[in-house]
Amino acid sequence: MNRPLFDKVTLIGVGLIGSSLARAMHRHGLAGEIAGCARTEESCAHLLELELCDTAHSDPAEAVQDADLVILCVPVSANAALAEAMAPGLKRGAIVSDVGSVKQSVIRDVDPFLPEGVHFIPGHPIAGTEHSGPEAGFAELFENRYVILTPPPGSDEEALEKVAQLWRTCGSTVEIMEPGHHDKVLAITSHLPHLIAYTIVGTAANLEESERREVVKYSASGFRDFTRIAASDPIMWRDVFLNNREAVLEMLQRFNEDITALQRAIRWGEGEMLESRFQQTREIRRGVVELGQAGTFDPREPEKVKKEE
Amino acid sequence: MNRPLFDKVTLIGVGLIGSSLARAMHRHGLAGEIAGCARTEESCAHLLELELCDTAHSDPAEAVQDADLVILCVPVSANAALAEAMAPGLKRGAIVSDVGSVKQSVIRDVDPFLPEGVHFIPGHPIAGTEHSGPEAGFAELFENRYVILTPPPGSDEEALEKVAQLWRTCGSTVEIMEPGHHDKVLAITSHLPHLIAYTIVGTAANLEESERREVVKYSASGFRDFTRIAASDPIMWRDVFLNNREAVLEMLQRFNEDITALQRAIRWGEGEMLESRFQQTREIRRGVVELGQAGTFDPREPEKVKKEE
Repeated sequence: MNRPLFDKVTLIGVGLIGSSLARAMHRHGLAGEIAGCARTEESCAHLLELELCDTAHSDPAEAVQDADLVILCVPVSANAALAEAMAPGLKRGAIVSDVGSVKQSVIRDVDPFLPEGVHFIPGHPIAGTEHSGPEAGFAELFENRYVILTPPPGSDEEALEKVAQLWRTCGSTVEIMEPGHHDKVLAITSHLPHLIAYTIVGTAANLEESERREVVKYSASGFRDFTRIAASDPIMWRDVFLNNREAVLEMLQRFNEDITALQRAIRWGEGEMLESRFQQTREIRRGVVELGQAGTFDPREPEKVKKEE
Repeated sequence: MNRPLFDKVTLIGVGLIGSSLARAMHRHGLAGEIAGCARTEESCAHLLELELCDTAHSDPAEAVQDADLVILCVPVSANAALAEAMAPGLKRGAIVSDVGSVKQSVIRDVDPFLPEGVHFIPGHPIAGTEHSGPEAGFAELFENRYVILTPPPGSDEEALEKVAQLWRTCGSTVEIMEPGHHDKVLAITSHLPHLIAYTIVGTAANLEESERREVVKYSASGFRDFTRIAASDPIMWRDVFLNNREAVLEMLQRFNEDITALQRAIRWGEGEMLESRFQQTREIRRGVVELGQAGTFDPREPEKVKKEE
């Protein structure tokens, strides 16, 4: 048997992403030992019960002791305090990474606390489901998904390569990107869609009781997809919006201008304008389908990532 | 073998819905004969080639000759002209129905043209995919789906029951609703979600070329679901918005107020407000999942309507 890629890996936060990573590392023999860090003793006991980690700790500095790789898997607003708390326990030569959906803020929040000789390679796996918590994870979550790494200028090449290899072994395609560019691209592909889904489901939730029942009943007509997105973890998404404010507000402004134009076309009965706008969007869908990103994921059958068309 | 429910059924328009209905009627032996009506001779030939109909006609009055049931399956703006054109061919006692997504306008547009002794039972199957055309249909499309019938006051009870029985045999659950109420409920569950999906995909389409490529590449992060909805038939949806203007504008106004409040909370860093809004939407999702409306539909495996949790 080959030696694992890392002798010891510590996961700070073991929810959907962290627990999926633990499962994938087990399956592929990527870590000699996995330590988990959770907030309460109760959560720690639960991680051991689920056999996700070899050891579980509520003290971040203790959790990262002797770790070769530490991955922050928490809502992004929690990064700064955790970085500060774990810093004294980090060994020289350790690699610190994360899985957050915003990359400029994690560099701002974590980098200043890292001791010299510790390598920081921020990352973001484009993978997830609407379910939360350590039970929701599964080893195949990252298969055929992109993982974007955003190493700060002057990052250690070897550390970068090791983190990339971890993800590739989990079945992902690794891309390198500038952190600001990442935040802008994700603002439109992920953050704005989630904000909109939360909004429309919230709008429906504010209808009168009788109408609300019927919204649920007839949700198959389009609304259903939005409810799935809007069932995502509220804390994680709160933090995304607070930490990628500029890019989200910029994309939201563009969206508002576009929907106002359509609203006006509906009000004035401008059928040609509506039709031409609705035609334009098919092009983008074709691109999505061609790139094979149109698979429907069923959390109960994780082995089967189905493709549409 | 039992006598079919209808001796002759005519489908005016044989696209995704019409062709699915033809297939379902064949499978369940619901019609002694099926006539199709399409705009061009070429389309008529294609319908016969696909063996969807026994006869195909480009003249609506000819198509409805001797029909016991006529179902309009066209974009809703086309209803008025077709009703006028087919009226002279309708036999006394015939039932006219439709499958349009807006119900007040179809009553406004069709009813005035129907001769005395013809029964009008408007309907709307809450079913569909993002694909269009007669090849896209399949017999199982209506299984486990709702069909809403909106009979005008004083409708013939027997005609209503026969149309309901047709849909039940296709596997649907039939509900009766007042047309205005239907249009309001569907404005929020279907029309607004489609408008929003078209808008955000359009917003992305207007980004610079380099960003647009990455939007497609990283679409798995939330955007993908919107591209699917926004790939729906442009003409059908143009007509929905033109014909359900009041209800759509009302719901859009509510949505705008709600997203403006979230925008403000993001700008001012109001985390508690964001979190509480994002919590609220999980309730609705629970309702959707409990009612079994959360199935993911894969057009390539129509037999398998999968349920999420």
